[in-house]
Amino acid sequence: MKRIAIDMDEVIADFIPKHLALFNRDYNENITVEDLKGKKLRELRPQLKEEIMNYLTEPTYFRDLAVMKDSQEVIKELSEHYEIFITTAAMEFPTSFTAKYEWLKEHFSFLNDMNFVFCGDKSIINADYLIDDNVRHFKRFSGQGILFTSPHNINETGYVRVNNWQKVRNYFLK
Amino acid sequence: MKRIAIDMDEVIADFIPKHLALFNRDYNENITVEDLKGKKLRELRPQLKEEIMNYLTEPTYFRDLAVMKDSQEVIKELSEHYEIFITTAAMEFPTSFTAKYEWLKEHFSFLNDMNFVFCGDKSIINADYLIDDNVRHFKRFSGQGILFTSPHNINETGYVRVNNWQKVRNYFLK
Repeated sequence: MKRIAIDMDEVIADFIPKHLALFNRDYNENITVEDLKGKKLRELRPQLKEEIMNYLTEPTYFRDLAVMKDSQEVIKELSEHYEIFITTAAMEFPTSFTAKYEWLKEHFSFLNDMNFVFCGDKSIINADYLIDDNVRHFKRFSGQGILFTSPHNINETGYVRVNNWQKVRNYFLK
Repeated sequence: MKRIAIDMDEVIADFIPKHLALFNRDYNENITVEDLKGKKLRELRPQLKEEIMNYLTEPTYFRDLAVMKDSQEVIKELSEHYEIFITTAAMEFPTSFTAKYEWLKEHFSFLNDMNFVFCGDKSIINADYLIDDNVRHFKRFSGQGILFTSPHNINETGYVRVNNWQKVRNYFLK
């Protein structure tokens, strides 16, 4: 059975709307997802980089993110044909461990928690495929990287790209 | 550069003395490390299995474990010749995440925390070597498993075995 490793933020957890809403509220801004095309919020407002990252160190930040559209249904279906691991770069925000674990147990309860991986450098991941929104994780990944479209990565070329979970479904189950 | 993945409990963190001390205190017993030869505490006292495991769900249980003799010096030396990752089956005790992370930052501060991996099923680990006290992690590991001697595993045969960190040093740097 081949193995698919799947990232969390911006792939199964809808990270951007909450981050934007908090930032717009606190800094009286009206930044939209459109504005984030080709860049991250911290690149759009570099003078506030520290404040922008500080939201993510709140222990509960990751606990109530929305689930990405169709991800549950498609991953459930994929899990009948592939071994599924969730591989998230949680070491960047060590305060997020518990929230991320609880979020996965709530929304992806059909997955075995022995298949959850909190890591940093994803070159440690032994899988046939890695679905991720950050191309940096593909550089030393030994399997096939699959770039999940997120506003910040729309200008990246040279990768297999999927725009949403129905496209993931087509890629693996067509 | 080849990569060595290293387990935490009973390999770099001295798990047994604290567990035994708490158990002996609470149940008025005098179990020694000698008694654990070939078995785990929960196998020696199966009627108290739940209580024995409950110690490990205390969020701070893993925070003050002693460091295994010579592990810091040898891993520091190994890190000049090999890529080092710490790979611990933390998903078995999700309440342990923070304590394990803080323990690593305290005692192995010379390692990059991007190389810490909290996982469950270690077949996800992509490394050339895995130093671990649990043989079950070797079954589907693609690299070379190296069994670190712990009382519970002394009867296991058919594995490359190291008895202490000086032996690890000899294996990799001789």
